[in-house]
Amino acid sequence: MIVRDLNEAKNTDRHIFSDGWDSVRLLLKGDKMGFSFHITTIHANAELPMHYKNHLESVYCVDGTGSIEDCTTGEVHQIRPGVMYALDKNDKHILRANDKPMVMACVFNPPVSGNEVHQEDGSYALEAEEA
Amino acid sequence: MIVRDLNEAKNTDRHIFSDGWDSVRLLLKGDKMGFSFHITTIHANAELPMHYKNHLESVYCVDGTGSIEDCTTGEVHQIRPGVMYALDKNDKHILRANDKPMVMACVFNPPVSGNEVHQEDGSYALEAEEA
Repeated sequence: MIVRDLNEAKNTDRHIFSDGWDSVRLLLKGDKMGFSFHITTIHANAELPMHYKNHLESVYCVDGTGSIEDCTTGEVHQIRPGVMYALDKNDKHILRANDKPMVMACVFNPPVSGNEVHQEDGSYALEAEEA
Repeated sequence: MIVRDLNEAKNTDRHIFSDGWDSVRLLLKGDKMGFSFHITTIHANAELPMHYKNHLESVYCVDGTGSIEDCTTGEVHQIRPGVMYALDKNDKHILRANDKPMVMACVFNPPVSGNEVHQEDGSYALEAEEA
């Protein structure tokens, strides 16, 4: 059994920081669960174009409000606590936070290894994950 | 892209009720994400012996407090918002809520189909899932 605490994992090597967001990885590939699990904070007023070409991801909003734009259809879905979206078609999207941070519980399949870098097109490289 | 709202899914066929807990299944096997995602409420003062022999599960506490007892080691871990446990060894365990409900974000691998029944030993039948 693995037990981890978000508050203890903050500001350790599980906690990564990027432009407009930061993320605490509570489960990674090495944990052998078959998925990874992250608590990600989208910073206030951030606008993040993203496209995970190599991963399926589900995202559940725990706190804060914002929206997700589906770049394929142009639809915009409002996000508030209790709303979940799942990128079952590796959907290209733009995530926007309102004027407070959004806290999201994220699941990735295949699991993220922790070594990925976001590429310019907004995806994670799958190759890096295999490293 | 799939978008679902916990509050709209409550009291629909996504919402199942059992002794000491209820669960809203926001993602199931049919969504083809490779995992299922549930928001599960452990009722106040519930004591739930569980043993998922056929599934790996991670559980992240969103609200409430309680504990998890690892039946293999006898260890008891306190649960509060931000604590995650992962049953990476199909760990037999007892989950206990304090005097308020605990709200948990749960991920199952393989994904739950929604047709399972909890068996007497606290597991889900894998066969039912394949139906």
